[in-house]
Amino acid sequence: MVPVPHLLHLDSAASLNNSRSREITATFADAWRGRGPEYSVTYRDLYREPLPHLADAVLHWPPRLRPEGAASADPGVLAKAEALQDELIGELLGADVLLVGAPLYNYSVPSSLKTWIDHVHVPGRTAPFVGAPEQPMAGRAAVVVSSRGASYDAGSPTDGWDHAVPMLELILGAALGMSVEVITTSLTLAETVPALAPQLDRGRAELAAAHDAAAAAARRLPVG
Amino acid sequence: MVPVPHLLHLDSAASLNNSRSREITATFADAWRGRGPEYSVTYRDLYREPLPHLADAVLHWPPRLRPEGAASADPGVLAKAEALQDELIGELLGADVLLVGAPLYNYSVPSSLKTWIDHVHVPGRTAPFVGAPEQPMAGRAAVVVSSRGASYDAGSPTDGWDHAVPMLELILGAALGMSVEVITTSLTLAETVPALAPQLDRGRAELAAAHDAAAAAARRLPVG
Repeated sequence: MVPVPHLLHLDSAASLNNSRSREITATFADAWRGRGPEYSVTYRDLYREPLPHLADAVLHWPPRLRPEGAASADPGVLAKAEALQDELIGELLGADVLLVGAPLYNYSVPSSLKTWIDHVHVPGRTAPFVGAPEQPMAGRAAVVVSSRGASYDAGSPTDGWDHAVPMLELILGAALGMSVEVITTSLTLAETVPALAPQLDRGRAELAAAHDAAAAAARRLPVG
Repeated sequence: MVPVPHLLHLDSAASLNNSRSREITATFADAWRGRGPEYSVTYRDLYREPLPHLADAVLHWPPRLRPEGAASADPGVLAKAEALQDELIGELLGADVLLVGAPLYNYSVPSSLKTWIDHVHVPGRTAPFVGAPEQPMAGRAAVVVSSRGASYDAGSPTDGWDHAVPMLELILGAALGMSVEVITTSLTLAETVPALAPQLDRGRAELAAAHDAAAAAARRLPVG
């Protein structure tokens, strides 16, 4: 049987015209599709078709691991939320490669992306838990495209202020067991914020390098 | 004129029955109200009445700082989102003290709380920006109640895995200029997860200490 490589492509930027994360994930997806008709894609735009916030904290766990009586939502609401969760997890499990457009909003991911994370990270189902060692996404590739308005260089005053990428690495890498690659483009605001203008060249160079890295990753993945 | 101290109380846990962050913020709010009828409260439950995700990235900035043509949303959608943003920022500006129930969900805040942050942090309006040094919340108190399923002790393998509190400190403290106090209760899962049962006593002691700290803060704030 010929393997059919499948990509799950997520975007979350609340901007359609002017989004570097969207442009870079598009470069990845174009290069992926360019490999041949068998390189298929599921696309989910978390901005254009926003997911609801988690309907109940019990959705953090599969039913067998939920404390009795812990649910707060009405049974009908919960059933609908579980169906959505099943759909999102099904899309994830069907992907050989996950591509995540993750602009940095207020030092973390947009809420639209966080709710996707809150739906798919389920210890005992998508991540290992006591007595449930399954890790169905283990070894598959995740590519995170991180676009950031400023810079967060090691040793600079803003070192460690990016709380988006480390959270995504914990969930996709440590918990789900995926092999996470981060493509970063910084200083996107240098185009419009005068105080950052001296760093315009760096911002543009990072953007070009990010497009190159995205295209290269799309031609290389999945590995194995 | 007698000052009228006002509290803005936010909860975000997607659980009504079994939420330590809700119990601790309730302890704070009760002690606050107990100081007298002038200690008033605006309550916003981000779970029961969820806010939409940010309708457009231009909402990160006041209109005068938005690049021309940057908006993606339809004008009607944008106007409605701006009205909501005005309401949320108005609530914040009306508060002498901000109380935030912030359970740790997947190493960050719930998406329901992140979207509140995404609406109220507006450089040039609620935070200083080039040419706009105003910082209207400067010096006011914010109390963050952080409840976490596990523990994240300095020097432990999970040191630094909490990406909720540092993000909230950056936004409320560094950006908005508030005086941020964090009340933490850890190991909430020790009640239900057998592997954490040996730490049940510590979890319960932290919970009791958090209630004490919340009541004490409510009797002490606002300062000055």
